[in-house]
Formats: sequence, C-alpha cells, structure tokens
Amino acid sequence: MTYCVGLKLDRGLVFAADTRTNAGVDNISTFKKLHVWEEPGERVITLASAGNLAVTQAVISLLSEHIASAESDRATLMSARTMFQVARLVGSAVREVKEIDGEALAASADNFFVTFILGGQIKGEQPRMFQVYAAGNFIEVGEDTPYLQIGEHKYGKPILDRVTRADMRLGEAAKLVLLSFDSTLRSNLSVGMPIDMLLYNTDTFSTERQVRIEQDDPYFQKLSHGWSEKLRAAFAELEEFEV
Amino acid sequence: MTYCVGLKLDRGLVFAADTRTNAGVDNISTFKKLHVWEEPGERVITLASAGNLAVTQAVISLLSEHIASAESDRATLMSARTMFQVARLVGSAVREVKEIDGEALAASADNFFVTFILGGQIKGEQPRMFQVYAAGNFIEVGEDTPYLQIGEHKYGKPILDRVTRADMRLGEAAKLVLLSFDSTLRSNLSVGMPIDMLLYNTDTFSTERQVRIEQDDPYFQKLSHGWSEKLRAAFAELEEFEV
Repeated sequence: MTYCVGLKLDRGLVFAADTRTNAGVDNISTFKKLHVWEEPGERVITLASAGNLAVTQAVISLLSEHIASAESDRATLMSARTMFQVARLVGSAVREVKEIDGEALAASADNFFVTFILGGQIKGEQPRMFQVYAAGNFIEVGEDTPYLQIGEHKYGKPILDRVTRADMRLGEAAKLVLLSFDSTLRSNLSVGMPIDMLLYNTDTFSTERQVRIEQDDPYFQKLSHGWSEKLRAAFAELEEFEV
Repeated sequence: MTYCVGLKLDRGLVFAADTRTNAGVDNISTFKKLHVWEEPGERVITLASAGNLAVTQAVISLLSEHIASAESDRATLMSARTMFQVARLVGSAVREVKEIDGEALAASADNFFVTFILGGQIKGEQPRMFQVYAAGNFIEVGEDTPYLQIGEHKYGKPILDRVTRADMRLGEAAKLVLLSFDSTLRSNLSVGMPIDMLLYNTDTFSTERQVRIEQDDPYFQKLSHGWSEKLRAAFAELEEFEV
C-alpha cells in the first residue's frame, strides 16, 4: 500500500508521501513516491503516487523523457501553460502506460491500479491541486474539502477532517499531516517511514522547503508521543457514559 | 456496511453496534445488529453481527429456534456449559446457513459474507469474547489486544489503539467506544445511528446496562462536540513543524 496526502491552503500547498512498497509483508522496499519538477521562479510541479510501482514509475519516466526529448511541438510538464494542462499530460501518460502494459497486466491477473495527487503552481496562476485516476481523468480540489488522500486513507482521515482549515500556516499543516501519518503507520504495515514532504509557499516557485523524515526523526518522535499523551488527557476530561 | 466493537476488560464486557443496513446509498434501513440472550443469574450471551443481513438474520434465527425447540439432546446457547461451546454453536449455525444459502448466493454473485463478535459469561467461567468468521471458525480475545472490531473498522481504530486499557471502568470504555463510532459515522455513510450498547459487569449475569443511543442523544452530541474541541486544542499545543 501507500499513504499520500496533499493539502491546498490559502498560503500554499503541502505534500507528504510514505516510501514503503511491498509485494506481500515478506517483501518490502523503500522507493520514492513524491516527485518534484522545478523551474526556479517560474513553476513547481509535484506528483505523489499510489498503486502498482511499475506503473507509477513508468508514468514518471514517460513524463521525464518527454521533458528531455527536444520535440518542440509537444507540451511537457515544463512547458504547459496551466496546471490543468499539466493534469492532462499526466492523464495522457497514464493512458500511454495502460496502452503498453495494460493487457499483459490483465493477463497475469494484476490490476492496472494507479492514482496520483498532482499539485503545483505555474507563474500567472494560483497554486492548484488535482487527483488523477487510473483512467487518466482527474478532479481538482475545491474549497469545501482542502485535502486529498490516496492509498491507505482511512486511519488518517478523522484527524484531517477535524483539524484542517484553509487558513493554516504550512508548518501547522505539516504537523497535522504527520499526525495523520502517525495513525496510519500504527495500523498498516504496508505504509512505512521515511516520509517525504514538500511545503510550497504560494508565489515562491521554489522547492526549498522539502524534507525527508526518517524513522528516528526527533521532531516526529516527540510529536507522536506528545499526541498520544494529549489524546489520553483530552479523553480523561470528557464526561463518562452512564447507564 | 456496519460497525461493531467489543471490549473485554478487567471489569467486564462492552458491546456496541450501529443499526444501518444498506443496499446502495439510495437504499438504507435500520436493523438491530446487537442480539442478547440472558438467563438471569446464570448466563449472558451477546452477538454483534456484520455482513449480509439475510445471512446474519438466518444465523440468529437458527440459534433462537434451537433454543425454542425442545430437542433435549442438542446443546443450545442457553444450555452450553462454556463460552467456547457457545462459539462452536454459532460457528455451526453459520455453516448450516451456508449449506442452505451459499450456493444460491454464489450463483447470484453475492458473497456469503458474515462475521460476528460473540461475548458473554456463563456461571463458573470468566467473561469471554470471540470473533466468529464466515467459515464458522473463530478466535478468542487475549490480553494483548482487548478489543474486537467488525465491519468498517479503520476510521475508529486509532482512538481505540491509543486509549484502550484493560483496567478501564465500563463507563469510560463506553465513552471511548462512542468516540470511535463518532469518527466512523463522520466518514462512512453506510454506518448510521442509532447505536445499540451493552455494558456487562462481570458476575452480574444481567443485561440491565443496555441502551440505544439515538441521533439526538444529548450525551453523544456533547461528547462529539467536546472531543472535536479538545482535539483541536491539543493539536494547537504541539510544536509546529519547521523546515
């Protein structure tokens, strides 16, 4: 499995992705699932992936090869003029991979399963965020629900539901996302540390606030421990049920 | 879907079950999923069910008919001498229903899906709790994980994980279970109020602490609201992430 979260806030975007891949509990590895493209001062594009690793890697590789190849008539992540166009490029890449690998995957009873959180900002637009599906179509995040989750989303959803506000500082949002990960990591072995994060401040067109949080990260350990203690204290303060 | 929880604590047992059944989001109903048999002063047996409603009802009906019919050579929920024997009777009833309906369900591409939390106490034993599967086999709750969940278990698990202690009072445990339900109800429409609960104190052999909690229950509303507030306050107290 996988767990990735994206938040679209007034001040910018926050992305987080775990790094565990598995083919059964006896076969786990660490792979990057948070991919970033940047043209300083002009655009930042981020893609977090869940699903079949061969499929997600093929999509990322296709998108990167298109950038590298000099076919000037083809739009790429680095030349598309809006994030909507970028979302269409990601969708097209998904469809291209499906065209190539879909039949063989189906024949071996594997699913063509993949889903992405795509976000970023291109100069001239506000930051935008999308969820791209295995069919290559997508939705855009609106104002009512300012976050997206892909992969193992259930354990970490209650805290996002209760605490997320569009006017949060990015550091606050990162704290929230890490708590959401903490709940997930405790319950699903197929989601694992380290966690890759990117905090993107609107109009900076920079990825400098990017970090990998390792298992023994002191902040994460303190946060996890502190949250458990505070939850238990909050619980104790609530009136007991009587019947 | 469904959400049911059972806790086996030092002081006794706590059961809770929602009452929503659905065949699609456009076809929901309210059905009791928490079933109780009692012989005052002698035994209390509780069964919470998840899965195909026709199957769970058939299992409950079979178990009840066996009690009513006077075949003295057949053990029933009311005559079995241990909770282990009771669990075997429930498993046998599941297999009997599968024998009758399994083929037709498979032919109509419906799953024979059912799972139970079984718990109770028979005089001469301590309280015990089991999870009974669709195959009719079962596991018993041990000391390491004092709770069972069936149905939509993920949203409500983080709070159970962090707060459950075997030495809780039953009223505290009921508060905890209701918070676990609150998280679940917010995220899965196929889990719905009212919630049926039973608090069973060891050696009372009585079901007097049984209650149905309706949508507008003042305690539940206060609990849900208070918990959200306290979570947000606890969150605000934790150090912000910096990068």
